[in-house]
Amino acid sequence: MAFQSDNCAAACPEVLAAIAAAAPATWSGYDGDDLSAALGEAFATVFGHDCIVLPVVTGTAANALALAAMVPPYGAVVCHQEAHIEVDECGAPGFFTGGASLMLVPGDHGKLTPEGIAAGTAAHRGDVHQVQLRALSLTQATEAGTVYTPDELAALGALARARGWRLHLDGARFANAVAHLGCHPGDISWRAGVDILSFGTIKNGGLSAEAIVVFAADLVDDLRFRRKRAGQMPSKGRFQAAQLLAMLEGDVWLRNARAANAAARRLAAAAGDRLLHPVEANEVFVALRPGEAERLRGAGLGFYDWGAAGSGEARFVAAWDTSEVAIASFEAVLAGG
Amino acid sequence: MAFQSDNCAAACPEVLAAIAAAAPATWSGYDGDDLSAALGEAFATVFGHDCIVLPVVTGTAANALALAAMVPPYGAVVCHQEAHIEVDECGAPGFFTGGASLMLVPGDHGKLTPEGIAAGTAAHRGDVHQVQLRALSLTQATEAGTVYTPDELAALGALARARGWRLHLDGARFANAVAHLGCHPGDISWRAGVDILSFGTIKNGGLSAEAIVVFAADLVDDLRFRRKRAGQMPSKGRFQAAQLLAMLEGDVWLRNARAANAAARRLAAAAGDRLLHPVEANEVFVALRPGEAERLRGAGLGFYDWGAAGSGEARFVAAWDTSEVAIASFEAVLAGG
Amino acid sequence: MAFQSDNCAAACPEVLAAIAAAAPATWSGYDGDDLSAALGEAFATVFGHDCIVLPVVTGTAANALALAAMVPPYGAVVCHQEAHIEVDECGAPGFFTGGASLMLVPGDHGKLTPEGIAAGTAAHRGDVHQVQLRALSLTQATEAGTVYTPDELAALGALARARGWRLHLDGARFANAVAHLGCHPGDISWRAGVDILSFGTIKNGGLSAEAIVVFAADLVDDLRFRRKRAGQMPSKGRFQAAQLLAMLEGDVWLRNARAANAAARRLAAAAGDRLLHPVEANEVFVALRPGEAERLRGAGLGFYDWGAAGSGEARFVAAWDTSEVAIASFEAVLAGG
Amino acid sequence: MAFQSDNCAAACPEVLAAIAAAAPATWSGYDGDDLSAALGEAFATVFGHDCIVLPVVTGTAANALALAAMVPPYGAVVCHQEAHIEVDECGAPGFFTGGASLMLVPGDHGKLTPEGIAAGTAAHRGDVHQVQLRALSLTQATEAGTVYTPDELAALGALARARGWRLHLDGARFANAVAHLGCHPGDISWRAGVDILSFGTIKNGGLSAEAIVVFAADLVDDLRFRRKRAGQMPSKGRFQAAQLLAMLEGDVWLRNARAANAAARRLAAAAGDRLLHPVEANEVFVALRPGEAERLRGAGLGFYDWGAAGSGEARFVAAWDTSEVAIASFEAVLAGG
Repeated sequence: MAFQSDNCAAACPEVLAAIAAAAPATWSGYDGDDLSAALGEAFATVFGHDCIVLPVVTGTAANALALAAMVPPYGAVVCHQEAHIEVDECGAPGFFTGGASLMLVPGDHGKLTPEGIAAGTAAHRGDVHQVQLRALSLTQATEAGTVYTPDELAALGALARARGWRLHLDGARFANAVAHLGCHPGDISWRAGVDILSFGTIKNGGLSAEAIVVFAADLVDDLRFRRKRAGQMPSKGRFQAAQLLAMLEGDVWLRNARAANAAARRLAAAAGDRLLHPVEANEVFVALRPGEAERLRGAGLGFYDWGAAGSGEARFVAAWDTSEVAIASFEAVLAGG
Repeated sequence: MAFQSDNCAAACPEVLAAIAAAAPATWSGYDGDDLSAALGEAFATVFGHDCIVLPVVTGTAANALALAAMVPPYGAVVCHQEAHIEVDECGAPGFFTGGASLMLVPGDHGKLTPEGIAAGTAAHRGDVHQVQLRALSLTQATEAGTVYTPDELAALGALARARGWRLHLDGARFANAVAHLGCHPGDISWRAGVDILSFGTIKNGGLSAEAIVVFAADLVDDLRFRRKRAGQMPSKGRFQAAQLLAMLEGDVWLRNARAANAAARRLAAAAGDRLLHPVEANEVFVALRPGEAERLRGAGLGFYDWGAAGSGEARFVAAWDTSEVAIASFEAVLAGG
Repeated sequence: MAFQSDNCAAACPEVLAAIAAAAPATWSGYDGDDLSAALGEAFATVFGHDCIVLPVVTGTAANALALAAMVPPYGAVVCHQEAHIEVDECGAPGFFTGGASLMLVPGDHGKLTPEGIAAGTAAHRGDVHQVQLRALSLTQATEAGTVYTPDELAALGALARARGWRLHLDGARFANAVAHLGCHPGDISWRAGVDILSFGTIKNGGLSAEAIVVFAADLVDDLRFRRKRAGQMPSKGRFQAAQLLAMLEGDVWLRNARAANAAARRLAAAAGDRLLHPVEANEVFVALRPGEAERLRGAGLGFYDWGAAGSGEARFVAAWDTSEVAIASFEAVLAGG
Repeated sequence: MAFQSDNCAAACPEVLAAIAAAAPATWSGYDGDDLSAALGEAFATVFGHDCIVLPVVTGTAANALALAAMVPPYGAVVCHQEAHIEVDECGAPGFFTGGASLMLVPGDHGKLTPEGIAAGTAAHRGDVHQVQLRALSLTQATEAGTVYTPDELAALGALARARGWRLHLDGARFANAVAHLGCHPGDISWRAGVDILSFGTIKNGGLSAEAIVVFAADLVDDLRFRRKRAGQMPSKGRFQAAQLLAMLEGDVWLRNARAANAAARRLAAAAGDRLLHPVEANEVFVALRPGEAERLRGAGLGFYDWGAAGSGEARFVAAWDTSEVAIASFEAVLAGG
């Protein structure tokens, strides 16, 4: 019963079936197959906007390639100080961009605000002696399990546009955000000014496919070469495309995300005033009381300690396949059972 | 009936079954699962030597990461002028190494020789004004469909060692080479001095897993970080490990390679004196006679023109699942049927 | 009367004379000349320790090359959040290292402390998903015009050693620090565990030569190639060596630094309680009172506003050739004259 | 009596005087001074075309920065197989571009031709699997001591334009080419389509200044940041500007080049049928007869052996200050004296 990460979850049947269906021989390798060719229209239909879709195999690659297409080597990307691109990707943005920097900005509950960005970049002069701010990267749902509203995103998008920055959205848990908001996916992507979206499926019942969804067509040519050069263009691309199409077909991506969010809400309700952040997606951050961590683990639940050592803080991540038994065990321990 | 590339071939049932079996939830993401943990021993058993195995998703990534662990940014890698790392990876070695160079050396039938390398590097001074030769990269089976014998590889390994170079083997079609030689896989890897092998499965009936097999343990620490940073460490690593284990289990990798090689030999026999290179693996290079290209395509066979425009040269790649019908069609056309 | 920067100061006569003396033809370009050959021993004599000296043309190059020799591309360098390498080099460390990061740590008056570093790095896990802390970079004298004592540096060096980090010292104003402390230059370099010192002369009456002084001999081979590759190995190296030798000869470097420090002390005395940081080298940071900035500029003094817009903070940098007139003008304005 | 390289030559008096004149304090560091401000107009007057001039300290930096502004990391630069950027810069283009490649093309006497380039790039497909050809780099005068005529350059420029490539000219010995041709400098730069010229002075009696002369204004913004980031923007920029202005003033650059070329013609005349290449600039390549190398060295002449070991080939480089005595000694030995 693993709450460590949605990376521990199962791959859902639709994705497995799609892979099996793509197994037979085709006429063309790389992205010359029919499934790869269908990606653009499938995503355009879901998002209500033209887009180009480049599958990759990790969120790290999706994020870092997107940023590399947006900023020059002497550029900098503004992001939250807890952003995955800063904390968990072993410096991938520096590698893919040729040495660009991240400019870290704090913000409550994992969110950036226009005011916070203004304050965090106020000391930046921007002359030739400094790196050049050229992009803003946001995470939706955030690292704290919260979700930007369409209005919040639009305001941040407007700020980016006003400053001449590109806008990247790390959507490893984009589905959870859409599921929470009940909005159209376009409302929190291209309508808010997002140039490139890292669209995740792996944490959402997927297997090995993430998608770089490019709304800003001027960035695509560069991205194609960078993707190939990074070893992220699979020689049997049909297996990547098949996974992505299976996720979109019949809104499997939203079904899975709704299930994960619902499980998280159950955990949140059980956690009550232990919650460190609002629970809006599928992550639950709690300040456990003395003894609870041991009892949860004793009950067979896996999770990560979070925050400073000894703080008692912990993270629980629900997934599309989180079981009733796991939730009930969590509830029982926190109810003092 | 696709002879364009072994990338067009089907994924074999064992690999598909292994992916399905790995689908359920696990206790740990990335490479913390049981399948990932089993990789090292499985490969060590097959190769007869300790090794560390890092799965990646493309041969390009395997090759470029291996080279990045071997040479500094001011280094250079000696390779054949037709090597995949030079011709077909969009400069990936330059990206992963931070700007190292390839020093191209010619050689008949896709092979390098100690004499050829000596001649090709004779003008290199090696002072501070020049890049530093630090590695030799060979391809087995070669880009011309030929296979280095264990003795040939050992001689090249000895040369590398004598010069203080690391030895990399691009084994996208390593299985085909072993199948052709009937040797132990160690005979054309670590016994010949190979430090890192890019072990391919995708062209050999696989789906999306290649393996960096590291025999030189001192290179592993660096590789782990580079792999993560390159977005080549999947968050559900069990699906990569499962594919590799399925390929080794019961020697599926050799079964598939033998089938591909046998099909290629059939094509070679039909081609007769049209052959441009000895056919030792699963690639067949031929100088077609006037009209044959059209007749082959008219018979529903796909393949790539090769060499200079208008030369009439063409490449046919057999795979584990090449059909009797496809072979017979090829034979019929070349027999003047 | 320029207090903007010590970069505005004159080049001192000894350096000019040395350049003129090096003008005639020699037998060997690059660093094959006698002056270049003499560098190592000259610095070793001054520092009391073997060292290898590689001249470069900017402090940015000295710092970035030093860091590139110390950390891998997936590495990170701990430094003060106001460090020149972060604020004023347009991301040079990211470029030279191939994308390594800076981990910024705050500290009063431009100084880092072991406690501050421990706190600032506490959240860093150091697993494969994160960049690897591999070096500490300090600035002496600091960006705030303060100076680490030998004991303070030794404690930081011990921390670096304990963590397995390399230690870099940005000594753009190293001479000012030695002049302030009255210590042996070895006391605040190799004796404190410094592996590589960026030894500046340009801000100290020099013209175009900075020196990378390498105490950790294992880093030199790598540095030589990186320096050449960065276009920092001049083809007429004798002119760079001549400048450095002229600075050391007869302790011109200390004479110049003492003059600059003395001028700064005069400014500090005049500034009184306006001082933002202790004045220990040649930089003076003050909180000007209303109207003073205008009056200073009206008196013909140049300087930079500092800190947030409208804060009234300003920086005044004294140099080896700061004139009595300039100092007196400063004193007069701040005395309300 | 050094014929090893024009890097061994003296710095000419005009340059030394200009440095001394620039020594006093100024109002602004970096490139905020009057001399730096005058560079653009001075070069525009000489070249008859608007241009932006960025001083750097080595030809390596000039070349590599120019190429980095022209090609993306997945790009490639077509150049002669003997080009300095390939043979003598320790891979600097790979470093500055973030891993772009050089595509080497052979050509007689150091020259490329449109036909040679067409043949040398014929096998390049240019699809996403390959690096992208984006620039042509030529050397004028060439590495073989020959000089492209304006017509030859214009034809190569037309080819570059037709293919959508940028055109870079490595002009470490540009002055020698102009002196040889007796043409207007614009005839072999912007009029031939050159986007960026690396304008050398150091081999031509200079001291430490080379100039990146940018005719293609769209490349400048990028170049400014790259130059700073590479540590090639000196903090006392006036000393770099002073050298360049001194070279242009009164056509010192042409006076020096004419002297060097004249000396080379004397050597060429003495060499007679030993010449390996036409002598059009200041380099003389000869096939010495048995015993001559020893006798030349015995006469106190320094020079480099060239070509394959034991070939008897040697290079002699004349400079602006090559002495009558040195020439006469050369003549005497080759006359059998």
